[in-house]
Amino acid sequence: MPSSPIRKLVPFAEAAKKKGIKVFHLNIGQPDIETPKICLDAVKNSDFKVLEYSHSAGNESYRKKLVSYYAKNNIEITHNDIIITTGGSEAIMFGFMACLDAGDEVIIPEPFYANYNGFATQSDVKVVPIKSNIEDGFALPPIEDFEKAITKNTKAIVVCNPNNPTGYLYSAEEMETLKNIVIKHDLFLFADEAYREFCYEGKQVSAMHLKGAEQHVILMDTISKRYSACGGRIGALVTKNKEVLDAAMKFAQARLSPPYYAQLLGEAAIDLPDDYFDITKAEYKLRRDTIVKRLNAIPGVFCPNPGGAFYAMARLPIDDCDLFCQWLLDSFSYNNATVMMAPATGFYSTIGLGKNEVRLAYVLNVDAINQAMDCLEVALKEYPGKR
Amino acid sequence: MPSSPIRKLVPFAEAAKKKGIKVFHLNIGQPDIETPKICLDAVKNSDFKVLEYSHSAGNESYRKKLVSYYAKNNIEITHNDIIITTGGSEAIMFGFMACLDAGDEVIIPEPFYANYNGFATQSDVKVVPIKSNIEDGFALPPIEDFEKAITKNTKAIVVCNPNNPTGYLYSAEEMETLKNIVIKHDLFLFADEAYREFCYEGKQVSAMHLKGAEQHVILMDTISKRYSACGGRIGALVTKNKEVLDAAMKFAQARLSPPYYAQLLGEAAIDLPDDYFDITKAEYKLRRDTIVKRLNAIPGVFCPNPGGAFYAMARLPIDDCDLFCQWLLDSFSYNNATVMMAPATGFYSTIGLGKNEVRLAYVLNVDAINQAMDCLEVALKEYPGKR
Repeated sequence: MPSSPIRKLVPFAEAAKKKGIKVFHLNIGQPDIETPKICLDAVKNSDFKVLEYSHSAGNESYRKKLVSYYAKNNIEITHNDIIITTGGSEAIMFGFMACLDAGDEVIIPEPFYANYNGFATQSDVKVVPIKSNIEDGFALPPIEDFEKAITKNTKAIVVCNPNNPTGYLYSAEEMETLKNIVIKHDLFLFADEAYREFCYEGKQVSAMHLKGAEQHVILMDTISKRYSACGGRIGALVTKNKEVLDAAMKFAQARLSPPYYAQLLGEAAIDLPDDYFDITKAEYKLRRDTIVKRLNAIPGVFCPNPGGAFYAMARLPIDDCDLFCQWLLDSFSYNNATVMMAPATGFYSTIGLGKNEVRLAYVLNVDAINQAMDCLEVALKEYPGKR
Repeated sequence: MPSSPIRKLVPFAEAAKKKGIKVFHLNIGQPDIETPKICLDAVKNSDFKVLEYSHSAGNESYRKKLVSYYAKNNIEITHNDIIITTGGSEAIMFGFMACLDAGDEVIIPEPFYANYNGFATQSDVKVVPIKSNIEDGFALPPIEDFEKAITKNTKAIVVCNPNNPTGYLYSAEEMETLKNIVIKHDLFLFADEAYREFCYEGKQVSAMHLKGAEQHVILMDTISKRYSACGGRIGALVTKNKEVLDAAMKFAQARLSPPYYAQLLGEAAIDLPDDYFDITKAEYKLRRDTIVKRLNAIPGVFCPNPGGAFYAMARLPIDDCDLFCQWLLDSFSYNNATVMMAPATGFYSTIGLGKNEVRLAYVLNVDAINQAMDCLEVALKEYPGKR
């Protein structure tokens, strides 16, 4: 079982803080956006006497309300197509375990969300990476690369859209390409759409929109980023494939139920005014524009403009991103501050890739981002391991 | 992956209710005892602005307070020996995954908590059952039975104490026997102690009390039953074995964090007055005395007196407990009511065992239990499949 690459620098950050250094956390997708008050109030105003198990698939009232949320996103489902999960993490686990057997292969464009590796290990499944490239902003690799990677053991493709860690927003054409591949080879398409609302260059095409692929698509969803409710641990597995849902339901029953409180929060979120995402999105867009501009203004740095989510990948003029990110924490400060980023190596499955790339989560306000970029700019001048 | 045997009768219960029949739910460990007000208030009074991820091992403040809870139970640990989990279910999963490889064998006295099967399937581990018997109240099987079951693939023993589904409370001698076995054969001892406080015949001996077995014992704990907080989904994996804890921590990091809200609830619970469990326990004892007396007064029924938890196993004069439990729901009523119980077959791993046994969870008040027993008494006269 691999360690979480995002969390392994934590001890160095803690040590820096103990020395009195301010650490700008651009390393993890923990937004600073406030959780909507009506969501927090839904929990505070709960008035039951016994905190009971919910239904293993989640509260029926919540699932029924989610149908209207998905309908707004042109995803037509019923509440029986949904299993409420403990975070998006459990939705991924249930999807893998319900669809894949030991030794099966799952194709994922790399760099990808590092914990897919952990879930694959737990499910005894082999991850087969296909390289996407920073030069074209991490667009979907060409169809030939998929065809080459498909073997008799291939059972699924994972697509995260908009993407973590790259921020890439897949086009309608790319989604159509994925549809054709999964239909042609009879594969599952696991669609991680945690960042659905955060698109700055056009609208997201959901895997659930792909006509004809309904039996192939397993949507893995979460309220964590959407409503800044990471600690609630509420997600959802959604699919029109009855057989997969029935299998996933057995895993859901074994763990009894998802957490009760944050289901109340998630249910209240459906009633947020329609402009909620406009406001949040505008804030993230401003941050994205700021961080991308600042990064590309630093000599030797290249950062493609991400179309969605709240991550940017940057190529830096350095020898080794793991060493550099650690050096930032244990040997550097500017104005008594430093910046924490995620080394990109943790997002690549192929050893040796991403050594001069980092992921930056723009989850801090513009002022903090500017200060963090000041740090990075100075750090890149001082860092001994230049390339 | 097996279906949850406790939940498969649910559609029949729903159909009975639609016909206007009152169903006494003795089938599932969902207590009717109110969740303590100070616990619910801790959640209601929360005043953060962002519902953030907690530490992957759970909030440090909660883990530090748990140290005092365990100290009261003569379990000496530090907060670094604890990983807060999403329910006891996740503690069991983490324990299995951290300690066992595919093909490893784990010995469990049967009947046992049915979901161990599900977790074993997910971990690709083989469950090897050893039969315990209703005649002696489901005491620990003799040591020779363990010795016979141990192979080169055996890696662990699971003990649930006090036991679900049997209510059996293991004696100090039996725990010593288990200690000697796991030390002799270098096995892990997974100790599920969800019902620690609910002992009516003496005190529980925790696996964490076993001197010399510290590196073998993995405690799987939960607040679900202790504080009637099943829906919170908060448990804990506790061990002095650093290597196991480090491995479990990787799984904890992959799923990011346990639910935030119910950690507040669990933390507040540590401040409950010392008599909290006295009151709850007195209530459960009254219910136990009632149900055991009523059961043994029915001709042909035998129910050993359970020493702990809130379950009783009864042998009934019937042909098939699965058919009988379903018949109670779809073909029987008395005073427009019926009773729902868990067929014991679901708790035995060996096919054919437990066919004339049922598990009754005494999670309803004495009045409801008496009405449920009235139903059962009449039902056993009317049921066509007598033995």
